[in-house]
Amino acid sequence: MTHSPESPLRVLVWGENRHEQVEPHVAEIYPDGMHNTIRSGIEENLGATARVHTATLDDPEHGLTEEVLADTDVLVWWGHMAHADVDDDIVARVHRHVLSGMGLVVLHSGHWSKIFQKLMGTTCTLRWRSEEDREIVWTIDPTHPIAQGIPHPFIIPQQEMYGEFFDVPAPDEIIFLSTFSGGEVFRSGCTWRRGFGKIFFFSPGDQDYPVYHHENVRRVIANGVRWAHTERSERALPTLRRHETEEFYTGKAYQGALVR
Amino acid sequence: MTHSPESPLRVLVWGENRHEQVEPHVAEIYPDGMHNTIRSGIEENLGATARVHTATLDDPEHGLTEEVLADTDVLVWWGHMAHADVDDDIVARVHRHVLSGMGLVVLHSGHWSKIFQKLMGTTCTLRWRSEEDREIVWTIDPTHPIAQGIPHPFIIPQQEMYGEFFDVPAPDEIIFLSTFSGGEVFRSGCTWRRGFGKIFFFSPGDQDYPVYHHENVRRVIANGVRWAHTERSERALPTLRRHETEEFYTGKAYQGALVR
Amino acid sequence: MTHSPESPLRVLVWGENRHEQVEPHVAEIYPDGMHNTIRSGIEENLGATARVHTATLDDPEHGLTEEVLADTDVLVWWGHMAHADVDDDIVARVHRHVLSGMGLVVLHSGHWSKIFQKLMGTTCTLRWRSEEDREIVWTIDPTHPIAQGIPHPFIIPQQEMYGEFFDVPAPDEIIFLSTFSGGEVFRSGCTWRRGFGKIFFFSPGDQDYPVYHHENVRRVIANGVRWAHTERSERALPTLRRHETEEFYTGKAYQGALVR
Amino acid sequence: MTHSPESPLRVLVWGENRHEQVEPHVAEIYPDGMHNTIRSGIEENLGATARVHTATLDDPEHGLTEEVLADTDVLVWWGHMAHADVDDDIVARVHRHVLSGMGLVVLHSGHWSKIFQKLMGTTCTLRWRSEEDREIVWTIDPTHPIAQGIPHPFIIPQQEMYGEFFDVPAPDEIIFLSTFSGGEVFRSGCTWRRGFGKIFFFSPGDQDYPVYHHENVRRVIANGVRWAHTERSERALPTLRRHETEEFYTGKAYQGALVR
Repeated sequence: MTHSPESPLRVLVWGENRHEQVEPHVAEIYPDGMHNTIRSGIEENLGATARVHTATLDDPEHGLTEEVLADTDVLVWWGHMAHADVDDDIVARVHRHVLSGMGLVVLHSGHWSKIFQKLMGTTCTLRWRSEEDREIVWTIDPTHPIAQGIPHPFIIPQQEMYGEFFDVPAPDEIIFLSTFSGGEVFRSGCTWRRGFGKIFFFSPGDQDYPVYHHENVRRVIANGVRWAHTERSERALPTLRRHETEEFYTGKAYQGALVR
Repeated sequence: MTHSPESPLRVLVWGENRHEQVEPHVAEIYPDGMHNTIRSGIEENLGATARVHTATLDDPEHGLTEEVLADTDVLVWWGHMAHADVDDDIVARVHRHVLSGMGLVVLHSGHWSKIFQKLMGTTCTLRWRSEEDREIVWTIDPTHPIAQGIPHPFIIPQQEMYGEFFDVPAPDEIIFLSTFSGGEVFRSGCTWRRGFGKIFFFSPGDQDYPVYHHENVRRVIANGVRWAHTERSERALPTLRRHETEEFYTGKAYQGALVR
Repeated sequence: MTHSPESPLRVLVWGENRHEQVEPHVAEIYPDGMHNTIRSGIEENLGATARVHTATLDDPEHGLTEEVLADTDVLVWWGHMAHADVDDDIVARVHRHVLSGMGLVVLHSGHWSKIFQKLMGTTCTLRWRSEEDREIVWTIDPTHPIAQGIPHPFIIPQQEMYGEFFDVPAPDEIIFLSTFSGGEVFRSGCTWRRGFGKIFFFSPGDQDYPVYHHENVRRVIANGVRWAHTERSERALPTLRRHETEEFYTGKAYQGALVR
Repeated sequence: MTHSPESPLRVLVWGENRHEQVEPHVAEIYPDGMHNTIRSGIEENLGATARVHTATLDDPEHGLTEEVLADTDVLVWWGHMAHADVDDDIVARVHRHVLSGMGLVVLHSGHWSKIFQKLMGTTCTLRWRSEEDREIVWTIDPTHPIAQGIPHPFIIPQQEMYGEFFDVPAPDEIIFLSTFSGGEVFRSGCTWRRGFGKIFFFSPGDQDYPVYHHENVRRVIANGVRWAHTERSERALPTLRRHETEEFYTGKAYQGALVR
């Protein structure tokens, strides 16, 4: 529960890593790749209490093998132009790990990723515009661990606009609301629990703007990583079991609908 | 919004209709099929303000064609032994209609149906036992429309036990909690919004017990049907659109991730 | 439950009615008093299905006698400069009626009224500015009855700014979010249940701007009035009662802490 | 945020300490007073990371002076037969500290204390019986910090029954549900945020039964104490301030309703 250099939180930052290859202006903002910029923001804030690795779409199995996921406490997800290239079987694997207790932090355009849609059950659509709006991020849940140390509000000078209606289930907690120069609003920091896993979505961040270099964005992501870690000891999916009267703890495996 | 004999609420009760064919004791409790018993409970309570049809698994396209769904305000779902036989494409169609505004009432063992899992994003597992427990249903949201006219508590003399942990997203509203003779507890009446659709899950009800003949169970289901109807005028999926500054209403269709 | 000209919803609009007396520019915008403008907006939308009365601070007992409250399904509250002049005993009476089942719609500066603070348990403070900001009201709960028929978004050309942090309990439902020209954001349409009563807070509206003449503001308030009505048949406070085993319905009155 | 022996969490257990004086069977179960038994359970679980003091009703100012509260991170409250003897001014002081950031853990019969009612805004009534029911405590929010290390379920052999309807605002989180031998159910572990303070209510515990000696009850209370601590640096009430356009951080004090 308390992470130390001896027992650090095991974090994996997954980056699509495509825009950086095909768009020079993105490579200029993020010369090490967006995933490495995100990683450095987490390391900067969590220090030796976290051990942060990265993986990308083009790695074998997208870098998300069973072994890697079993060794991950919290997965951070950034994707955009290549959502469709993520293999459905690997999405199912990540989904199983989240329901079994792995934390998940979904960033920005990850709202439209297969894994986020699968966990939400909705279209996860929104309204948008990329015209250098100013985004102001306001805290409406001031005691939430993810909001600690974050100014109210903080300002991102240039940003893509993400606006409502954001088609997601009503969040368990809404921590941040963002407004944009054009007058739009967005639930920009939200949490949901699914199975034994905790999910944090944070919308600021884009390949076209240097948002992942912003001090407060980095701090929010680090806070979110720490929050998303579940303190349960085992990684196991919720299962359906039959419990006889007065037998509360073990149960029996399901035998089929016609077995009574 | 107000339903009248001239403009009735269009309800479709979907029943798997398998236990009734293969288990004589079920056919004895539900000689017209469970779907028809559920239907009669809705008609009994909503009268001429609702028009209730039925469909079953063995109908062509499971009775859930595009035309039928487009003509349905609220779909009621009961399935159990044949969840796996429901065609994935038809599940996707129902899912699209729910997100587009069709109400959905999921009953009892429907908790493990493909459509409910797809909407929830979780395993929807629970603990269970079929040993003639007494179920007591308590109201914890007394002003909710679905709780109106329902005694606090009401008792179902013999029932299958469904117990926590029920692996679903934290409900938007928990209306009913059930306890069982064995000491278990279950969130037995819950709501969730997904897209433009409203979902009500109600756990009492089973093929092995005459639960759908119970006066208060019938009233809750009818209240749930009425509640799940969304008053929006069109049936349309939330979509991602680009809105220029000061253009708030129409937007433009998405052109792809590299188009700015 | 269904209101008709024979059995209309009984609505009472309570207005402080002070600014209209001391500030000519307010009297110009609201020549009949703000309470009558609010009343007309409700009548315009609910027609003969509602019967709308008014009461003001200077009426005997502020127009909120036991008899009047017992004859009220939903109370609408607007106050601002004279919150402190509302008698504590009458606040306690209104509080008791809300917990017993009377609906309450609190408007704008009513956020700082004694009755709203007493129901919320918090300071109900916020940030503000009166500088003719443009307010844009966005719907984030599109299936909510209060949002029906309301454009997404709608615009109020000139308004006082109310901004976060708004110190209220996390709402049961957030229906509307507002943004302002200055970049602030506010949870502008929220619901809470307290006891057997339903509460809707809606922030647009001010004595200095003609907001209660705005078509969509009027519709939201009317929707809120209809929603806040609880369908329970009796007006009674939740009470603590002792229930012997297997005696579920009647109970015995509390006899004191040392009586076992 | 991380508490250590050098910077321990400052906890104050407030006990009414009356039953222990007038009822020999209570003194027998709790020879050191209930507050000291509760204290030892917290110390047992939090060790040197917490410093736990106690205060009782009969202390000057009930042991809740401004200085004591300013030196308290989390207050634990147990009261029952003497709720009415708690001074209203001291209740107002505790209320102010909670809204300003002090954590509050309310135990069992504290549901009917003045401070809990003031924070909830409702009657906080319930149904009850003291007849040695068995209470079973079930976890429905398995990733919540307060549920960590707690068996699902755990059993309290003899307990007072607390049943629904529990007249409190819909909790922000429901962590535990309890059932009783008689078939009743209760939301037994719930959280709410109010102002800058976090509140945890936990119902198991009674003067007539040795519940505060139960291993898992002690662990839940300790978890609740740790959770209720807010990481904000200052103890200050939310206030209403005017912010000019583009002036986001300081604001000006409120000058009255007629000053524009």
